[in-house]
Amino acid sequence: MTDHRSTRPLVALLDGTLLAPEQPLLRPDDLGVLRGEGVFETTLVVDGTARDLSEHLARMGVSAATTGLSIPGPDAWRHGVAAVSDNWSGGRQMVARLVATRGPDAAVEPVCYVICTELSPVSLRQRTEGVRVLLLDRGFTAAEAESAPWLLAGAKTLSYGVNMAALRYAAEHDADDAIFVASDGAVLEAPTSSVVIARSRTLLTPPVRGILAGITVRRLFRAAASVGWQTFAQVLHADDLRSADGVWLASSARLLAPVVSINGVRRSDGGLTAELHALLEVPS
Amino acid sequence: MTDHRSTRPLVALLDGTLLAPEQPLLRPDDLGVLRGEGVFETTLVVDGTARDLSEHLARMGVSAATTGLSIPGPDAWRHGVAAVSDNWSGGRQMVARLVATRGPDAAVEPVCYVICTELSPVSLRQRTEGVRVLLLDRGFTAAEAESAPWLLAGAKTLSYGVNMAALRYAAEHDADDAIFVASDGAVLEAPTSSVVIARSRTLLTPPVRGILAGITVRRLFRAAASVGWQTFAQVLHADDLRSADGVWLASSARLLAPVVSINGVRRSDGGLTAELHALLEVPS
Repeated sequence: MTDHRSTRPLVALLDGTLLAPEQPLLRPDDLGVLRGEGVFETTLVVDGTARDLSEHLARMGVSAATTGLSIPGPDAWRHGVAAVSDNWSGGRQMVARLVATRGPDAAVEPVCYVICTELSPVSLRQRTEGVRVLLLDRGFTAAEAESAPWLLAGAKTLSYGVNMAALRYAAEHDADDAIFVASDGAVLEAPTSSVVIARSRTLLTPPVRGILAGITVRRLFRAAASVGWQTFAQVLHADDLRSADGVWLASSARLLAPVVSINGVRRSDGGLTAELHALLEVPS
Repeated sequence: MTDHRSTRPLVALLDGTLLAPEQPLLRPDDLGVLRGEGVFETTLVVDGTARDLSEHLARMGVSAATTGLSIPGPDAWRHGVAAVSDNWSGGRQMVARLVATRGPDAAVEPVCYVICTELSPVSLRQRTEGVRVLLLDRGFTAAEAESAPWLLAGAKTLSYGVNMAALRYAAEHDADDAIFVASDGAVLEAPTSSVVIARSRTLLTPPVRGILAGITVRRLFRAAASVGWQTFAQVLHADDLRSADGVWLASSARLLAPVVSINGVRRSDGGLTAELHALLEVPS
């Protein structure tokens, strides 16, 4: 296996053309750069196969529709993903990011590409060692976000500045990640993942209102239901996180990371992480 | 004078190197593209001179500090602005945008450039003909935004997706622009401008809490105060907008546009726009 750190990112256009990451691709007047206008998806590719690709492409279509962007159809994206997957010479697990920027002002078509990178050693480690999280106020409530489509709460856009700022704030305050809480106290989501809790043999996640529809959560819930877990979407509060048997952050690349502390207070995963990892088919 | 529509944008790096806008500049893995991580400023250049450049550079420094970005100092930016200004062959009024993207993941220095474009005919027209605005909920309150630095409410970042979505929403609903209102009803700002109202010989604008500090408003207030207007920062509500003698959107390129309707209800500018334009030295 190639040394993880030495594998360079690989970039493909949707026609299969491969580009070096050092090669500039975006114009300085691309609205994806100037205004964060565009959409993206991230998926894990294991041994050359992209996980849940159909669901990621469907969600990307929703994000594009929400932001008034006309993007190529699923087949075109599959072609781009295949180009990077087939030419990847790094480790077993790589992260493919599908990106569509709006393009320059007068553009009629977005600039689309797929970029793949090695799964980061940090993500790999956090799957088992877990993450320390801070609860951070997201400002709005789920209902407000839902009734204000311009807030783009359910779209995965290139305007991820707030999400990144929340992660930086966490890092500056002795934590690894954050969980956004609405102004009415309801748990929303993490900056780059969804929240799942266990309460005896029940898995719970916040309803998809004012948050992104989590693909990894859905996959986990399907697998868990098939072996007898109850699974529900339900409004959760900070107290539910504290009293739960376990809390996890679910996302497409890191997959499932146990929350080992909340606002500095340690908590256990109820010994459940290995079982949930098996249900999610988390690769080792 | 060169025909407005035929003048192409001009791009300069901070060392003065000129680039064609068609020439790709940003790597596909630049976090400015992938995450909307970066900061910018926009200023009007009239007859080769950038307006309020010192204040824009100071505010860009604040935005960079808020987002943990280390950007070059004012002199470097002035060099880039001079490069585009000196080589501009278009009309008298052009818009210079100063951009710093975070760069690729491992980058220690941001990618910095200045891009200038002709002032759009729409902006020029709206200075006198005005804008129809919708009041749109911004989700949070000013106090919430102020106590949650990760919401980046006071920084001018490349994650402008919500601002652009609000403008698209307005355009889809028979309006030209929007004014964001906090969840407690306080008027905040417009997606790309500040709000100013007149009440007899007093000019009012919302306090700089959870919003960007408006440079054009400050300039207008200084000039107005010098000829006897009272000027205050004060919490305003929708009723204040309706009962005001006039309402304007102030920004660096369009400068000052009267609000001619709010949520579909026409309103006058109290015959004050020409006087305020003169105070702001709005070029014709």
